[in-house]
Amino acid sequence: MDSSVQKSGAPVAAGLVEDLAAASRILAAQSVVDAFGHVSMRHPSAPDRYLMARSIAPALVIPDDIMEYDLDSTLLSASGRDSFLERFIHGEIYKARPDIMSVVHSHSPSVIPFGLVAVPMLAMFHNAAFIAAGVPVFDIREKFGATDMLVGNGPKGVALAAVMGRKDIVLMRGHGSVACGPTLQSAVFRAVYTEVNARIQHWAAALGGGAPITALDVEEGRLADQVNQTAGMRAWNLWRSQVKW
Amino acid sequence: MDSSVQKSGAPVAAGLVEDLAAASRILAAQSVVDAFGHVSMRHPSAPDRYLMARSIAPALVIPDDIMEYDLDSTLLSASGRDSFLERFIHGEIYKARPDIMSVVHSHSPSVIPFGLVAVPMLAMFHNAAFIAAGVPVFDIREKFGATDMLVGNGPKGVALAAVMGRKDIVLMRGHGSVACGPTLQSAVFRAVYTEVNARIQHWAAALGGGAPITALDVEEGRLADQVNQTAGMRAWNLWRSQVKW
Amino acid sequence: MDSSVQKSGAPVAAGLVEDLAAASRILAAQSVVDAFGHVSMRHPSAPDRYLMARSIAPALVIPDDIMEYDLDSTLLSASGRDSFLERFIHGEIYKARPDIMSVVHSHSPSVIPFGLVAVPMLAMFHNAAFIAAGVPVFDIREKFGATDMLVGNGPKGVALAAVMGRKDIVLMRGHGSVACGPTLQSAVFRAVYTEVNARIQHWAAALGGGAPITALDVEEGRLADQVNQTAGMRAWNLWRSQVKW
Amino acid sequence: MDSSVQKSGAPVAAGLVEDLAAASRILAAQSVVDAFGHVSMRHPSAPDRYLMARSIAPALVIPDDIMEYDLDSTLLSASGRDSFLERFIHGEIYKARPDIMSVVHSHSPSVIPFGLVAVPMLAMFHNAAFIAAGVPVFDIREKFGATDMLVGNGPKGVALAAVMGRKDIVLMRGHGSVACGPTLQSAVFRAVYTEVNARIQHWAAALGGGAPITALDVEEGRLADQVNQTAGMRAWNLWRSQVKW
Repeated sequence: MDSSVQKSGAPVAAGLVEDLAAASRILAAQSVVDAFGHVSMRHPSAPDRYLMARSIAPALVIPDDIMEYDLDSTLLSASGRDSFLERFIHGEIYKARPDIMSVVHSHSPSVIPFGLVAVPMLAMFHNAAFIAAGVPVFDIREKFGATDMLVGNGPKGVALAAVMGRKDIVLMRGHGSVACGPTLQSAVFRAVYTEVNARIQHWAAALGGGAPITALDVEEGRLADQVNQTAGMRAWNLWRSQVKW
Repeated sequence: MDSSVQKSGAPVAAGLVEDLAAASRILAAQSVVDAFGHVSMRHPSAPDRYLMARSIAPALVIPDDIMEYDLDSTLLSASGRDSFLERFIHGEIYKARPDIMSVVHSHSPSVIPFGLVAVPMLAMFHNAAFIAAGVPVFDIREKFGATDMLVGNGPKGVALAAVMGRKDIVLMRGHGSVACGPTLQSAVFRAVYTEVNARIQHWAAALGGGAPITALDVEEGRLADQVNQTAGMRAWNLWRSQVKW
Repeated sequence: MDSSVQKSGAPVAAGLVEDLAAASRILAAQSVVDAFGHVSMRHPSAPDRYLMARSIAPALVIPDDIMEYDLDSTLLSASGRDSFLERFIHGEIYKARPDIMSVVHSHSPSVIPFGLVAVPMLAMFHNAAFIAAGVPVFDIREKFGATDMLVGNGPKGVALAAVMGRKDIVLMRGHGSVACGPTLQSAVFRAVYTEVNARIQHWAAALGGGAPITALDVEEGRLADQVNQTAGMRAWNLWRSQVKW
Repeated sequence: MDSSVQKSGAPVAAGLVEDLAAASRILAAQSVVDAFGHVSMRHPSAPDRYLMARSIAPALVIPDDIMEYDLDSTLLSASGRDSFLERFIHGEIYKARPDIMSVVHSHSPSVIPFGLVAVPMLAMFHNAAFIAAGVPVFDIREKFGATDMLVGNGPKGVALAAVMGRKDIVLMRGHGSVACGPTLQSAVFRAVYTEVNARIQHWAAALGGGAPITALDVEEGRLADQVNQTAGMRAWNLWRSQVKW
């Protein structure tokens, strides 16, 4: 049992909480998040709950910052600490997609352009293979008109999850993106390589001058993504070893 | 009271002076300024004065470097230390705009191109929302002919402030830019995200090949900027925690 | 003799094993590899064998991680440790090209675009002179259909080596590249400057807007590459001095 | 007098030798040079001689590495240490241009494209003002046919200096560039801001899509460059303070 989490659901092993806190710092170290962005994981034994840090810059998260929410994103931890305004991204995706165990939300600069112009993100290499399945774009304006651009309540989270559908990634116009996975490690891996993939595609698009890019097709993406689920641990092990509290 | 400031106006709390000195180092750490550039804040109790470091590289500023000026940018601190040549940017903006409490001047490379070609800077994402109100460009040549490009006296500062008008940002052709805010923290936040926004727009423009970019519109910008005034403190808290004297 | 290598062939001097381990860390420090990628060298006294680290992130390799393979990429070291899935890249190139003594495989983001669009990589400057001889592109799909994109068995390695032919570099569509050399130091040098060259060509191509680039021609490339074989040691000496175990 | 220099001309103050060694490390820290490139200064009391490090990576130079040459680039220091192959760049420029006191040769990736396509480098901002006078391109092939691209003897140095003429900068096709100044500090400043300027121009050119860039004109460049000669010391002071031996 883990005394470092304010629990109102089931207890969570300390190692898992530490990994979730480390994931925040990894995403910062890999330039996927800056002062903003967040990563969550579904509660390992209570699938109707999820775990996420209090509202704090990702590079500063420690295990004690992790709190527990239900899928309506109501705080269950007995704590007066602030929650992220956009926690509904996480809760509504976990509701809509029982297969997803971890969610990363970020604003990495290289990714944002793909939500602003009508050029689809494609899978440039095997490490970003999951992108080959397609990358939908959520424009909050379509359903909600002029807003502060934030997914700051349940209905906005529902709309985002609906646009994402069966994919594991969704771009948010004028804002950022979300990457998901069947494990914490997979979601972090995908978030990191979405950022790398975006940089590669910027170069490839400019180099080709609009000519077609021979990106991974759907089947190549599916096959390569399977390998990433296991081989990707080599990246996690490196990044995890570099986290210093 | 703060003995670290050469005072000729009212005394300033040491914490505020430290924050202003830290702001210089934050801007350097975030690659908004290099060896050049400066940040000021209006005197908290004497609105006809402002505080700014002596002429020194931003990464080296310590609280003891902070000096006091009137709005004509005449040094009031009893000190023989050098002042920035371009302090008139600050003084004349404070004169023209009572609502502005802090001013950042920088030459970040990603921003300069928007002052050199006829492509307006747009707000690419919510963190740079204040840009959606519009970004004027000051060409010193229009009023002053061939110069050393510096806003090195009062009339040039007046002309710059006039071009900026009611916006909180102005680009300077062949030189750099100015970002302003109602607090020190807000001005720093806006300067940082102006730089990030510029990088995003370079990518978006190239990716779209000249097609329209669905940037934040004016109302989205207004709403998102309101959130930034409070949520932006998460960034300040991160950056401030990383400043080591 | 070196007790740090699990030997089944001839013993290898400890300094050479240390240099090979250091090469992994150099490639990571120079941003040629991230959590993935690998460098090998042909066994110095048994040309039908090669040395390479166990499956681990390049930045973490230590001399004790180096293992020995035959040219079918069968592990000869008496060890239960994991091998890289793509070791066949190395074995099959050593088989096909007796003149090559070291092989680097990487996924550096700047290089990948040249395998995705029909624009040949050219030699932008003397440090990347070996590129002037030409840069073939291997598309695994041509011979093997939809795959996980990995060169994960002998036949795929044979096909890759065949496309490379007499060149010392080959790009892999949707994956990465391979750079080779007559010494470990030369292969590392070429891998580093392939990455730099790719960045220069992205800029040159965009700047010229499709106009011809006056890259090094074949003879200039041949002459400059000869100098690199000796002068390039200045780079190795710098990078090697920066490796800390 | 300075015992750290092998002298055959007049003695040089230790502080000047330290500044020259520091200049090498500054250029490496500012990403103007990598493992290659070099900076020299004319001998302060013997104008027919110059000082430059032995052949070593710039980041590793210490004061004891500084050696003395005549303007034919013959080593005068009593030392068996290696000289840079391209020292003739320095000697021949000092011969042709008595006003130049310091020379920097570098291969920074952002600058090289301007020697490869027919787009002139322009002055994007006041810190790079000296560029407004014009930037000639030396193509070694015109006079010497296919070579190893290096300025490795006197005649090649003479040809380079002739193309540079009365400018303080020259690009070298497929190789790099040279920046010069009336002081060591000025040459370093110009080399650093040539690199920054190149990055800005890449962005500006892409953003404008070929439209004219309102760069500094010749007179603006002349006036701004005068200011840089003194205000630029703020940059030198920052960079010099960061050099650790």
